[in-house]
Amino acid sequence: MHDRIDARMRELGLELPPPLPAPRSRMRRLQFHERLIYLSGNGPFRGPELIYAGKLGADLTLEQGIEAARLTALNLIGVLRGEGVALDRITWVKALGMVNSHPAFIDQPAVVNGFSELIADVFGEDRGLPARSACGMASMPWDMAIEIEAIVAVD
Amino acid sequence: MHDRIDARMRELGLELPPPLPAPRSRMRRLQFHERLIYLSGNGPFRGPELIYAGKLGADLTLEQGIEAARLTALNLIGVLRGEGVALDRITWVKALGMVNSHPAFIDQPAVVNGFSELIADVFGEDRGLPARSACGMASMPWDMAIEIEAIVAVD
Amino acid sequence: MHDRIDARMRELGLELPPPLPAPRSRMRRLQFHERLIYLSGNGPFRGPELIYAGKLGADLTLEQGIEAARLTALNLIGVLRGEGVALDRITWVKALGMVNSHPAFIDQPAVVNGFSELIADVFGEDRGLPARSACGMASMPWDMAIEIEAIVAVD
Repeated sequence: MHDRIDARMRELGLELPPPLPAPRSRMRRLQFHERLIYLSGNGPFRGPELIYAGKLGADLTLEQGIEAARLTALNLIGVLRGEGVALDRITWVKALGMVNSHPAFIDQPAVVNGFSELIADVFGEDRGLPARSACGMASMPWDMAIEIEAIVAVD
Repeated sequence: MHDRIDARMRELGLELPPPLPAPRSRMRRLQFHERLIYLSGNGPFRGPELIYAGKLGADLTLEQGIEAARLTALNLIGVLRGEGVALDRITWVKALGMVNSHPAFIDQPAVVNGFSELIADVFGEDRGLPARSACGMASMPWDMAIEIEAIVAVD
Repeated sequence: MHDRIDARMRELGLELPPPLPAPRSRMRRLQFHERLIYLSGNGPFRGPELIYAGKLGADLTLEQGIEAARLTALNLIGVLRGEGVALDRITWVKALGMVNSHPAFIDQPAVVNGFSELIADVFGEDRGLPARSACGMASMPWDMAIEIEAIVAVD
């Protein structure tokens, strides 16, 4: 069910972070509708611990922002896996990358690329290239550096 | 068509605000696609009057933000009802809570919970727990405290 | 395939800007899922050149913001056309207008109307009135004045 994706992640030296705790709010980490799965906004956590806090352009370097986006991508994959979604059968449809930004920071695409590169590398160009938007937020929950929500489709 | 939801709202002591005026822009308050309904961003209005204006972390208390999110939830329900959608037959799929935020405000989830708690209480945990994102905006139309857009599915 | 829309654009004196270069990131300008097309966030570019940079309420006038939204609308149409989508057969389902905003700017709807008016004029009220949200961003990629993402449905 995950064999191809698991092998690819091992090949890339990627490991899923520990599972996230249950949401503190009355919401789902993902919701199904027909063949679509809507993923709630996720951030750069390792289990319960927020790893990257602060704003790009003020508190964090671009490199840290990219790492935060990579960790967020791994959490999104982890959420899908934790819910029993067959990773071998999904296609990434849409992603919204919300970057915690100082008003003068304008390089959100480079930050969100941390997510996009990882997803494309793991899922391949056929299934891992969603439509995407990147934008700069005034502030974010728990001051997290980035939040990414996504929609995937299951074959 | 709304019997179960109406009864539940009475039980909770909730009342829909007066209907919103027609949009000032050339847009729809909701748009149908197959079994999905896309709801435009709504805010804390009572009919034509904006009730909660200003930024969290500067102009408004957390409690006011939560009340703003609750009023917005009621407006979203009101829009569905006003368009003749059978409230007994909808499932909340996705919500995006955009909180008008001072750059240092990081408690957007607690604000958006005003929406989430109400929707879960009225529609039940089976149908009223969408995927969700919460984020902090630099500024908002008419300075409204919060804007929430959502997607619901009809059975 | 585009006859009706082409005629209408000529009638309105509208011309598509030169095609956008390929995305610099590993993403798609649009992604299909069944009858839906998800359009990535687009901005006020003319080919590779960003035409409107800066924040509303600080660097740009409302009129410039509206022009930026119009140009963005034309780019979205251009992306659909460039991918061979039959413009005569699409319906606009949802749009999110993200306006690069000074914290005190609160007239995002008037800016996004530049997009909405053009889409409604070209595609007609039946097909060109999506659900919509407008919001104010702290900052934007390449400092672009506006970014709009959209979902359209194909008959």
